[in-house]
Amino acid sequence: MPGPIEDFYAVIPAGGIGSRLWPLSRAETPKFLHDLTGAGVSLLRSTWDRLLPLTGPERIAVVTGQAHEQKVEVELPDILEGNVFIESSPRESSAAIGLAAAILQRREPDVIIGSFAADHHISRTRAFEFAVEQAVAVARAGYICTIGIPPTEASVGFGYIQKGDEMDVDGAPMAAIVDRFVEKPDLETARRYYADRSFLWNAGMFISRADVLLAELQANEPELHAGLMEIAEAWDTGRRHDVCERVWPGLKKIAIDYAVAEPAADKGRLAVIPGHFDWDDVGDFASLAKLISDGHPENMSILGQNDKVIVDESTGLVVSQTNRVIAVVGVEGLIVVDTEDALLVTTSEHAQRVKSVVGALQERGRESVL
Amino acid sequence: MPGPIEDFYAVIPAGGIGSRLWPLSRAETPKFLHDLTGAGVSLLRSTWDRLLPLTGPERIAVVTGQAHEQKVEVELPDILEGNVFIESSPRESSAAIGLAAAILQRREPDVIIGSFAADHHISRTRAFEFAVEQAVAVARAGYICTIGIPPTEASVGFGYIQKGDEMDVDGAPMAAIVDRFVEKPDLETARRYYADRSFLWNAGMFISRADVLLAELQANEPELHAGLMEIAEAWDTGRRHDVCERVWPGLKKIAIDYAVAEPAADKGRLAVIPGHFDWDDVGDFASLAKLISDGHPENMSILGQNDKVIVDESTGLVVSQTNRVIAVVGVEGLIVVDTEDALLVTTSEHAQRVKSVVGALQERGRESVL
Repeated sequence: MPGPIEDFYAVIPAGGIGSRLWPLSRAETPKFLHDLTGAGVSLLRSTWDRLLPLTGPERIAVVTGQAHEQKVEVELPDILEGNVFIESSPRESSAAIGLAAAILQRREPDVIIGSFAADHHISRTRAFEFAVEQAVAVARAGYICTIGIPPTEASVGFGYIQKGDEMDVDGAPMAAIVDRFVEKPDLETARRYYADRSFLWNAGMFISRADVLLAELQANEPELHAGLMEIAEAWDTGRRHDVCERVWPGLKKIAIDYAVAEPAADKGRLAVIPGHFDWDDVGDFASLAKLISDGHPENMSILGQNDKVIVDESTGLVVSQTNRVIAVVGVEGLIVVDTEDALLVTTSEHAQRVKSVVGALQERGRESVL
Repeated sequence: MPGPIEDFYAVIPAGGIGSRLWPLSRAETPKFLHDLTGAGVSLLRSTWDRLLPLTGPERIAVVTGQAHEQKVEVELPDILEGNVFIESSPRESSAAIGLAAAILQRREPDVIIGSFAADHHISRTRAFEFAVEQAVAVARAGYICTIGIPPTEASVGFGYIQKGDEMDVDGAPMAAIVDRFVEKPDLETARRYYADRSFLWNAGMFISRADVLLAELQANEPELHAGLMEIAEAWDTGRRHDVCERVWPGLKKIAIDYAVAEPAADKGRLAVIPGHFDWDDVGDFASLAKLISDGHPENMSILGQNDKVIVDESTGLVVSQTNRVIAVVGVEGLIVVDTEDALLVTTSEHAQRVKSVVGALQERGRESVL
């Protein structure tokens, strides 16, 4: 069995709630703490388990909110105490990943970090390991590297990365320069991208030397960079709390795609490794239904108490977190999410609208179920 | 205010569970014990309240099962103790109504009985009272009389009664002879009936002298008649229990439509009064949804905890018996029934299929929720 990759450190930002997965995903128990795929462990734990052979237990860091510190430590009992980085408030991915990069770079100047979302689903991990190994090789050569997923359909739910020229980096036979980053497209554009084999899905994985990442951030967002460096300098000292309290709330909220990846692509400094593994961001119940149905959309997928669900001429997904009998009759693409204090009924077609429910609940002062 | 109708006695068979209304309606708390229309009282109590001005509290009898005796007495605190007739097991409407007819006829030979389901919805009770008053006049003249509802749509959910010649009965200006009874038709036939103004819905209301009803039953179902007479003879004596135990279980299960009404129609002895009130048998959730929406199918109807239901681009019916937040997103004609131990999700279109769920639950040994 191959050992950990030299200089490599994995960072898992565990921040987002996943409000399109309400009422399963909540502020208290966000998406990454759930076993959404029936794997038997949480998505966060799956992410850890997937990274472990690449890093070993002492080289994985998690960036998360105060509210989830304890739960993260329960999920990941082997994580080093100093590797749980607490954000005092949510400030988007540039701050989260940038903070980890700055802290780790102070601890280990040549460190290569890879950031991997805490709440995505990946299967066929051997292909994942191979992709990361190549990405680290590309990162070692001074590039920022991402892993892109060859599309399996014309999805409008993901951003796309257009591959350019192939690269010649030792240990990275599949590496290519990124020509451009594209936001979630409309359906017609998505169809074009799907037909054109040079487009890959942006899976939000970035691998680079910490110093390269920070330099790119400094070039594009100098204030954010300066703030993060100030915090990182104080992090492993007694001043951490005071500096965080003063600096963190003023940091700019910006996704790492905009603050780092796109500008790097414009300069020809962003590389991509095609990842030939199954990947899904499990962004909403439609995507969860599809994932669990495992290519059999003619069945009703069930997550939870199987033997208490009665299905009559229905397809879709039933998530059962209670002990109740659930009967579904004659609805195609149905989504039912049954929890102790909240019930959601929708269809795959409308899964994206679930976010609006969360908004409506906030307006009505029903924070207790959010 | 007009007083009770002379010689008239109302009989309320309260037997059926209403399994197409599961999980709201259960063996323990069948349909007639529910406030399905948001009236503030149960359907049984509404039935009682509607009949009261026509009979007074001492001339209403209920035929029900052992399991519901106590609940019926709670719902109807003014009912006479001797007017709750307990069936030792369910044996269909001929046995239930025939038993009441036989008991009441022994107590009062000239009695005119009217049977009215415990679980139907009626509004505009003045029109109802007028129809019953006419029906009693027709019954006094020796006919068996039914009340038929002028159809408001081409329903395939009800049986039909075809009106024939008008009658000349004092106090019954709208009475007509019934030409024939028709079972629930297919859609094409229903459309024809709806266009032809001589067809009325069979609302299952029968008014006749008890002795006339029993004679008709004797002519068509002599064994059933003999059994009922034997039980009635023993009813108000110490032998009731023994005779019931011996005779009741052997009685033929047959609907009163077949054992009495149809044969009477064939002999020209069945009359009908058109009932110009709103009537619904609330047979399934589609019919309940329609009833509650009150002509506004573009809205989501809610029965229960209104302020915890979030509706986003959905229509249909939500029945909430729990304290949970319920969010429905993007489904037309949706039916959600949320109870403590069971949840049903279907659409108006499939409301008739709910009965099959009850069958599936029985097969799986989930009697606790039935």
